[in-house]
Amino acid sequence: MANPEYDVYDPQCPTRQALDRIADKWTALIVGLLAQRPHRFGELRRGIRGISHKVLSQTLQSLERDGLVRRAPLATVPPMVEYSLTPLGRTLDEPLAGIRGWAERHIDEVQAARDGYVPRPKARVSG
Amino acid sequence: MANPEYDVYDPQCPTRQALDRIADKWTALIVGLLAQRPHRFGELRRGIRGISHKVLSQTLQSLERDGLVRRAPLATVPPMVEYSLTPLGRTLDEPLAGIRGWAERHIDEVQAARDGYVPRPKARVSG
Repeated sequence: MANPEYDVYDPQCPTRQALDRIADKWTALIVGLLAQRPHRFGELRRGIRGISHKVLSQTLQSLERDGLVRRAPLATVPPMVEYSLTPLGRTLDEPLAGIRGWAERHIDEVQAARDGYVPRPKARVSG
Repeated sequence: MANPEYDVYDPQCPTRQALDRIADKWTALIVGLLAQRPHRFGELRRGIRGISHKVLSQTLQSLERDGLVRRAPLATVPPMVEYSLTPLGRTLDEPLAGIRGWAERHIDEVQAARDGYVPRPKARVSG
């Protein structure tokens, strides 16, 4: 742990909220594209595929609020907006690249496990 | 990218599903605890704090289905179950530790950004 005051396992700790924000599939995909170069909204939507307008918009707004993404209106007609990573956002690319890379490296093993998985009958167990 | 056949940006690609599974706050917290030692259900619930019985149960079942967590019934009365990481699950600890560590290292900057954030009035912008 970087700072012993902070503990992601404590629901009262602000790091837990930050984890909620960044441990997110859409954040991983958006930050991955923006780490390459700035993107407009529609470019992000086409690049990610499968993300709705609403979810992309909300996720970008959260990332902007948290200081990870910068939103810059362009002087175009019609008005367009460009999104880029802030210096803080760039620090997030390395850990998120680790997550994306894991998914790509280990998918064969995950799929083999899924193929062999037999769901258990429901039962209550004490812990 | 580890394997050019795979692309987390393609919604049809199985790596995208794997990303959905692992880029998740609860997965990051559960794997972090299990990386230290096996835990019983109640120990996980107390260790994570704030996770509901239902969400912990569902997340563990998904992790088991994906071959990341092993569930071992113990010969106790009442019956108890111990959860541990599989060898595949252990490969996930390093990238997830990167995410948890980022949250702890950069929370001050995230909080400063939140404190200074002024929401924009709603407007439609082309992209």
